[in-house]
Amino acid sequence: MTHNVAILGASGYTGAELVRLIATHPSLAITGLSGNSKAGMAMADVFPHLRHLDLPRLTTIEDMDLSGVDLVFCALPHATSQAVIKALPSNLKIVDLSADFRLRDPAAYEKWYGKPHAAPELQKEAVYGLTEFYRDQIRTARLVAGTGCNAATGQYALRPLIATGVIDLDDININLLAAVSGAGRALKENLLHAELSEGAHAYAVGGTHRHLGEFDQEFSAIAGRDVRVQFTPHLIPANRGILATISVKGDAATIHQTLSDAYAKEPFIEVLPMGQHPSIKHIRASNFCHIGVVADRIAGRAQVIASLDNLTKGSSGQALQNANLMLGLPETEGLMMAPVFP
Amino acid sequence: MTHNVAILGASGYTGAELVRLIATHPSLAITGLSGNSKAGMAMADVFPHLRHLDLPRLTTIEDMDLSGVDLVFCALPHATSQAVIKALPSNLKIVDLSADFRLRDPAAYEKWYGKPHAAPELQKEAVYGLTEFYRDQIRTARLVAGTGCNAATGQYALRPLIATGVIDLDDININLLAAVSGAGRALKENLLHAELSEGAHAYAVGGTHRHLGEFDQEFSAIAGRDVRVQFTPHLIPANRGILATISVKGDAATIHQTLSDAYAKEPFIEVLPMGQHPSIKHIRASNFCHIGVVADRIAGRAQVIASLDNLTKGSSGQALQNANLMLGLPETEGLMMAPVFP
Amino acid sequence: MTHNVAILGASGYTGAELVRLIATHPSLAITGLSGNSKAGMAMADVFPHLRHLDLPRLTTIEDMDLSGVDLVFCALPHATSQAVIKALPSNLKIVDLSADFRLRDPAAYEKWYGKPHAAPELQKEAVYGLTEFYRDQIRTARLVAGTGCNAATGQYALRPLIATGVIDLDDININLLAAVSGAGRALKENLLHAELSEGAHAYAVGGTHRHLGEFDQEFSAIAGRDVRVQFTPHLIPANRGILATISVKGDAATIHQTLSDAYAKEPFIEVLPMGQHPSIKHIRASNFCHIGVVADRIAGRAQVIASLDNLTKGSSGQALQNANLMLGLPETEGLMMAPVFP
Amino acid sequence: MTHNVAILGASGYTGAELVRLIATHPSLAITGLSGNSKAGMAMADVFPHLRHLDLPRLTTIEDMDLSGVDLVFCALPHATSQAVIKALPSNLKIVDLSADFRLRDPAAYEKWYGKPHAAPELQKEAVYGLTEFYRDQIRTARLVAGTGCNAATGQYALRPLIATGVIDLDDININLLAAVSGAGRALKENLLHAELSEGAHAYAVGGTHRHLGEFDQEFSAIAGRDVRVQFTPHLIPANRGILATISVKGDAATIHQTLSDAYAKEPFIEVLPMGQHPSIKHIRASNFCHIGVVADRIAGRAQVIASLDNLTKGSSGQALQNANLMLGLPETEGLMMAPVFP
Repeated sequence: MTHNVAILGASGYTGAELVRLIATHPSLAITGLSGNSKAGMAMADVFPHLRHLDLPRLTTIEDMDLSGVDLVFCALPHATSQAVIKALPSNLKIVDLSADFRLRDPAAYEKWYGKPHAAPELQKEAVYGLTEFYRDQIRTARLVAGTGCNAATGQYALRPLIATGVIDLDDININLLAAVSGAGRALKENLLHAELSEGAHAYAVGGTHRHLGEFDQEFSAIAGRDVRVQFTPHLIPANRGILATISVKGDAATIHQTLSDAYAKEPFIEVLPMGQHPSIKHIRASNFCHIGVVADRIAGRAQVIASLDNLTKGSSGQALQNANLMLGLPETEGLMMAPVFP
Repeated sequence: MTHNVAILGASGYTGAELVRLIATHPSLAITGLSGNSKAGMAMADVFPHLRHLDLPRLTTIEDMDLSGVDLVFCALPHATSQAVIKALPSNLKIVDLSADFRLRDPAAYEKWYGKPHAAPELQKEAVYGLTEFYRDQIRTARLVAGTGCNAATGQYALRPLIATGVIDLDDININLLAAVSGAGRALKENLLHAELSEGAHAYAVGGTHRHLGEFDQEFSAIAGRDVRVQFTPHLIPANRGILATISVKGDAATIHQTLSDAYAKEPFIEVLPMGQHPSIKHIRASNFCHIGVVADRIAGRAQVIASLDNLTKGSSGQALQNANLMLGLPETEGLMMAPVFP
Repeated sequence: MTHNVAILGASGYTGAELVRLIATHPSLAITGLSGNSKAGMAMADVFPHLRHLDLPRLTTIEDMDLSGVDLVFCALPHATSQAVIKALPSNLKIVDLSADFRLRDPAAYEKWYGKPHAAPELQKEAVYGLTEFYRDQIRTARLVAGTGCNAATGQYALRPLIATGVIDLDDININLLAAVSGAGRALKENLLHAELSEGAHAYAVGGTHRHLGEFDQEFSAIAGRDVRVQFTPHLIPANRGILATISVKGDAATIHQTLSDAYAKEPFIEVLPMGQHPSIKHIRASNFCHIGVVADRIAGRAQVIASLDNLTKGSSGQALQNANLMLGLPETEGLMMAPVFP
Repeated sequence: MTHNVAILGASGYTGAELVRLIATHPSLAITGLSGNSKAGMAMADVFPHLRHLDLPRLTTIEDMDLSGVDLVFCALPHATSQAVIKALPSNLKIVDLSADFRLRDPAAYEKWYGKPHAAPELQKEAVYGLTEFYRDQIRTARLVAGTGCNAATGQYALRPLIATGVIDLDDININLLAAVSGAGRALKENLLHAELSEGAHAYAVGGTHRHLGEFDQEFSAIAGRDVRVQFTPHLIPANRGILATISVKGDAATIHQTLSDAYAKEPFIEVLPMGQHPSIKHIRASNFCHIGVVADRIAGRAQVIASLDNLTKGSSGQALQNANLMLGLPETEGLMMAPVFP
């Protein structure tokens, strides 16, 4: 049986990634694509790499026919998303890829995003979309909130360690390398090839990145007390991928065992043998997350390193994984493609 | 029904690409992987991006158990391939990805490769693997010779034009941009990141590239007379993809129509609307080939531009497409994944 | 003796490159910098790589004090330039880096740039800034028009060949690879890192690139008859550099000799030994141009390949070379830095 | 007055960078170049970007005429360097760019480099080449040991902070991004463009990088007690540049003031305004080091970020700066070129 899905905001990178993934999904059909600034255009004119597919033309959200649609992916910019989702038919299943429903607490939302939430009742209803940890709730959810891509990477490395108490909660330092597609298709000077290629720099230094809101919310909930991590992201000259290098206080072997146990049955999370660590090159364009653990020369400390593709496991792949659950399909359907190397 | 396949030379890029493609192919199972210099290693240690797959360990070719194997992909270096294939059981179907069986004429082989062929009888038997033009022969072949990746790109643009006589056969100039994976995983100074990134240069200038042997053979056969094209490849700082810009003498509209007609029913060849032209970014990691035609300001001349991924449509994807035919499977099986963008 | 110079349009790449070059020039001092959209900012805030220099703050053009200024570099967008230059004091020496004064014929300007020229009398006065060929006129000029960067590359390869008649004037095909800084700091989707990195495509295909106006003007003037070349530029994923591969009809040895003779005494033009050819990696960030000649396998044809850095020899370095001449300084002053490799 | 210098090991990247810098140095002349594996070749054949220079041909070290040479740059691989330098005439001034004389303690050398030192008496004599902190000793030294490029970056950020005690010595975590030229021109699989471009990964994780030997030696000497930092380098897809992000415990404003004071008169060290931080793009191909300080959201913590070009300020530029001092020349001579951007 085929389920019909629509994608709102199909002219951005996460929208295009959804189309790429659904293109070979055996149980889903795309019946609607919106892109307000490009309404009327054929998808092949916006994304020529999708030329071979028989896709609906882009429309405005208003003009989209949602009858017969089982699930909507909402890949709109944050802030836009909350208003649009509020107005959608209440029987529609929704996977939101924006930042709008990641934080459950209206005060936290306002702190990190700078204005009050426009749909606090939906905020309450939304399930946080980190599939491996919210699987049962996602299965029955109507609205699932995709996680931040950096937030997902850090959580895959740290949640089992915080839950089991094998690391010091007051001594967690996340340094992260982020490829540029995480910033979207926005026309900004620092995203130009001439500015980024052969360059690298930190950003949101000092604890100002919005994904910290997710770390705070999730880690504190797991620990049952406030947890505040350090987090310094860096922009590197690559298109896809995130690598988080996390310095923690704890026994490396115990940490490795804890992660191995936690993810033993997970289809997409690969814990590498003790001492090995991942590369963004080895998860590219796939839904896999690789995690490694290495003991530090300073006794009682370890480096935990996690890597995933921000556009796939970090957003659109995660969204599809959640959609599979919400539609009663096998969780891995359409997502088992191997990473693209080199 | 599942067919068992083995890959000889699985530690190179085309070998890894075959594994990537076959990983989600519904009708093929990999039962053997060889890699002489890395025999004994797990594939995940050679290619960590394949870590999630349950693959046989690498062996030497001698140690590989070929009983139960239906088809062998031979991704060995050229010259090695002819000796190995000669020694394989004669009932095995073989798709060779090396240069060894592309040229039918022993004299042409010796001219372009610098020494006599070691298995001229197999050379005679081998079918040239440009699927869209040798489909019927491939279906019943025992040995199929994968084409050169540059040779494939140029032929997709030119074969229908030469066959129909709509261009001047003595005025064809192919300029080509090639990404670096086409050179394989060889340890050469000019393939280092520090040497290639931010660089670009021509190579094999003046008509010395071996893929010219294929152009000469195929174009002359189609035309029924000698055809000698100009061909200047350039190495660019990218990992995957080929873009051939071909200056021809002929009417642009006629050329576009001829190509559109020729490929109307082909699942992997996309002729763009008149005046549009392709980018290597739009076919990456896929089995698609995009072709565009633009009229030149000089009356009676046109630019024909074709692009494909050297590792997929240019070698391993082509090989799988041919294997599908040889095994009686649907030609497109396992090959319809959309390009990866960005 | 120090000459005072000002730079109009200092917030773009060519402006920044001028500052970089002048920073170590022994005889020039920068006394004014304009950048209308960034007026009031310190140069270090617009270009942090220039932080160590003691530079004037950016102003509007109107607010710039030109008293005491000997020469102005005008690095404004084309069309803007002609109006600004028209309004400058008539005793000021001017090196213009825009496209506004490259074409001498008002009709040609209108054809290639789509509207009538606003200062046709200046258009007549301006000297074409290809230093090696207009040296004497530049020395005494008041207004020098910087050439197109692609136009410069093609001319270095072809002018001596056209002048001496050693190639067929009706069979010249220029294929060119261009790095992205040639497109400036404009916020366009196709210039984003995510869109260009790992990508490559042709542009202005079929003879629509504006630099063809310069080829037409210059080559026809040299030949004393209309010359119309083919020209297909390609955008490659690199920041600096141009490589032009030119297919010509003529004897390779004669061509090589002609070029060697023509440039024997030129400080910045290096003709490589016969059979060798250049790379953009070998001229990066320098004022050098490398040229190579290779005979083609097709008798009587040759490939001539030229490479230079679009920001240096292709624009700001050329501008400084011309300014040196106009100010009576040694032509090579401040320009002999070696290319940056790797 | 011109001083004659020779470069041993001129066929590697640091050797070529030395030639690039000396090319426009007003007081130095290169009279000898060695490169054992490429002896007999012209430098232009090894490094075509140096083609315009009139350079001596490469020789073996044995065949090099050192009479008349005032100073030798030794850019040989580590371990080789100690034997070669031991055999040089004892009146020659030497700047060594290898790792051989960075560690003063023979036991520390053996620990980090795996074998006993072959010239312990020279090890004692050598002055550590971090110019800004060893200036007086360098002026009169016969043998100066160039620092590790990563080690230099970390020390510029931390030395003044350790010396003044404004940070907790037991809580220093250095995460570092390193471009690939730091690994030299070695033919290794992980340095290939196809393996590194679009990739990023940590290396020497857990405190095994040899530059830790320098951190331990220098920081402990300054503090007067053992100091052991955490250090995790990452390889990123860029050719030049290092960015070190260092998490420290201390007051951000005090840290910033301490660094500003320490470097107020230094020509090459730029401390950015409070809250700003550097990019490798802004120091490329120059001898400058940029340092920034940002307060962390976790009270009492700060991020100190430093960036320099590994080939220039991190090795060959540093070497030239030291040579200037040793030869009684102005320290900045030949080194004030602005960074290359974009």
